[in-house]
Amino acid sequence: MKTPFERLRNLIADLAHAKIDALLITSPANWYYLTGFTGESGALVVSRKGTSLITDGRFMVQGRAEASGVRILQQQGSLFESVGQCLKDSHSNRVGFDPSQVTVGQLQSLRKAAGPGVRWILALGKVESLRMRKDAAELAQMRQAAILAGELVQQAIRLLKPGIRELDVGAEIEYQMRKKGASGPAFATIVAFGKRAALPHARPTAKRLRKNELVVLDLGVILGHYCSDITRTVYLGRAPKHIRTWYQAVLEAQTAAIAAVKNGAACGDVDRAARQVLAGYRLDHLFVHSTGHGLGLEVHEDPRVARGQKKRLEPGNVITIEPGVYSAGIGGIRIEDDVAVHADHTEVLTRSPRDLIEI
Amino acid sequence: MKTPFERLRNLIADLAHAKIDALLITSPANWYYLTGFTGESGALVVSRKGTSLITDGRFMVQGRAEASGVRILQQQGSLFESVGQCLKDSHSNRVGFDPSQVTVGQLQSLRKAAGPGVRWILALGKVESLRMRKDAAELAQMRQAAILAGELVQQAIRLLKPGIRELDVGAEIEYQMRKKGASGPAFATIVAFGKRAALPHARPTAKRLRKNELVVLDLGVILGHYCSDITRTVYLGRAPKHIRTWYQAVLEAQTAAIAAVKNGAACGDVDRAARQVLAGYRLDHLFVHSTGHGLGLEVHEDPRVARGQKKRLEPGNVITIEPGVYSAGIGGIRIEDDVAVHADHTEVLTRSPRDLIEI
Repeated sequence: MKTPFERLRNLIADLAHAKIDALLITSPANWYYLTGFTGESGALVVSRKGTSLITDGRFMVQGRAEASGVRILQQQGSLFESVGQCLKDSHSNRVGFDPSQVTVGQLQSLRKAAGPGVRWILALGKVESLRMRKDAAELAQMRQAAILAGELVQQAIRLLKPGIRELDVGAEIEYQMRKKGASGPAFATIVAFGKRAALPHARPTAKRLRKNELVVLDLGVILGHYCSDITRTVYLGRAPKHIRTWYQAVLEAQTAAIAAVKNGAACGDVDRAARQVLAGYRLDHLFVHSTGHGLGLEVHEDPRVARGQKKRLEPGNVITIEPGVYSAGIGGIRIEDDVAVHADHTEVLTRSPRDLIEI
Repeated sequence: MKTPFERLRNLIADLAHAKIDALLITSPANWYYLTGFTGESGALVVSRKGTSLITDGRFMVQGRAEASGVRILQQQGSLFESVGQCLKDSHSNRVGFDPSQVTVGQLQSLRKAAGPGVRWILALGKVESLRMRKDAAELAQMRQAAILAGELVQQAIRLLKPGIRELDVGAEIEYQMRKKGASGPAFATIVAFGKRAALPHARPTAKRLRKNELVVLDLGVILGHYCSDITRTVYLGRAPKHIRTWYQAVLEAQTAAIAAVKNGAACGDVDRAARQVLAGYRLDHLFVHSTGHGLGLEVHEDPRVARGQKKRLEPGNVITIEPGVYSAGIGGIRIEDDVAVHADHTEVLTRSPRDLIEI
């Protein structure tokens, strides 16, 4: 298992390579990964000379307790003024920042406070690329999170009966996950009945379940800081022929995409494997999103499993595989599992039957 | 009640004044406020010539159903490339964007796609300043959200007994809020026992409650899209003298700050009212955060009720008042209510007793 200390050391080696004196970290997932700090506000400055966490009064006690070996500074005035001042004081010359995580306004404040001695270097996804390769301890944690998600989806399926509301099912899912030790849902739990299943990101409403409706359940937990994400689709009653055909198509597409997941495979090829199966059924125009996404400390992280993505899978990558079809009049069908890439095999982390369930 | 249409009209009038042809909106709360769209990804371009929502395949059905009178465009390639292209096609000249909401990378993509014909104008908080002044329908919704939060805190207090875990209480609170129609918590519910109450933003853990411990419960709901936020502190047992004194100090500080809330009062003066009371008890150094924050579609929005804030309160503003004291060895005490500013009076939206509860 890598310790935060080793992660910091790996990052610092990478910075030296890119001739960056100090790297600014503004994402909570990134600073947790590097230091163990779980506070919600702050910024981390990583450099060979040492690592500093700048945060506000609400998180000082927490910072000292969690982020050992890191200098903890309380911000004076605005966060980014304090960070700029800290960089100026440490005589950092070339400072890296992630343009996808720093706002235009934050960069203005930083420039002003740090003064002309600092050159600002674009440094995209430095920590994210380390986070993509999960170590054994991370994979063990993600396995548990995935298994819990599978248990919750099975429990939720047992609740489905005519008259129950989407929000009752959603409330029960999130209650049970907390009772089982999750710190919360990895994303807003999706429970969509009937035509509402046509919305890939439907939030639970007061809609009641009726006979002969589709049900899409898409949920994930955060357990020990790591996310899981699973989707199952159920039919209340005996599914008509076209629904069976659609379900079969999505299941085959998912199976093909999982089979395409391999050490060295390009993410775009995994996406294409799903899309080709749906095209064979002439349903590819109803597949309105990408095949999957990386999963870890965040529910959406690198790598993206989407059309044309050239990134090649490596051992330690964990991704979702979640093809679906959606039609405004009818509803939607999606099947999603979490998959880990190993050197010589692929591991499906979620464990829940994938066949069409009719109840 | 203002309709989204009127809000858009008010915003467009404001843009004309600032000589902005089109305003880019990238925050979900802002696009919901202006159009009713509840999707999680996209961008809105507001201009006199019409308003366009650019989103991806997952949200097209939802966009068409929710955002009436708005052109819905499906993004091609990345979101910000599509937005830039849309601005180029509409021959917009001066385009406003909020530097606190647009990343450096997004602005790079926008500039590239929109080409040299577009001038990018800093336009900070245009929609936020409209959102600060809640109308009657918004206040009615916020009253309901606040009352529900008060009920939940009372219910949670009844659960407190030796041996119960923080996470059991947290799970029950979030379950009950959903059963009562909330779409979810306004923020991660805080349940902190004993010394953990010294962390203003503690997340529930497996820690069990013991006799003679402080309990901080800080929760809020999202009900009909609007947030509430309430904190109560309880002592399990008969509180020792120093805890009673601290509680009394925080209660007096909160009472003084609520009394200072008035149409026309500066936010910094409201903050000072709380701080002065605590200083009288020599406890001001333990008050490690600001007195409050605006509340509405987001749980933290304008105005900020903090040291030195010059912004003057206006009718329709809704803010929290939440002084607290924290000490690493002992725990923490915080009391928080939600307050609406009217032309000639102040309304406390949360309804829950504020005296020290010993159980």
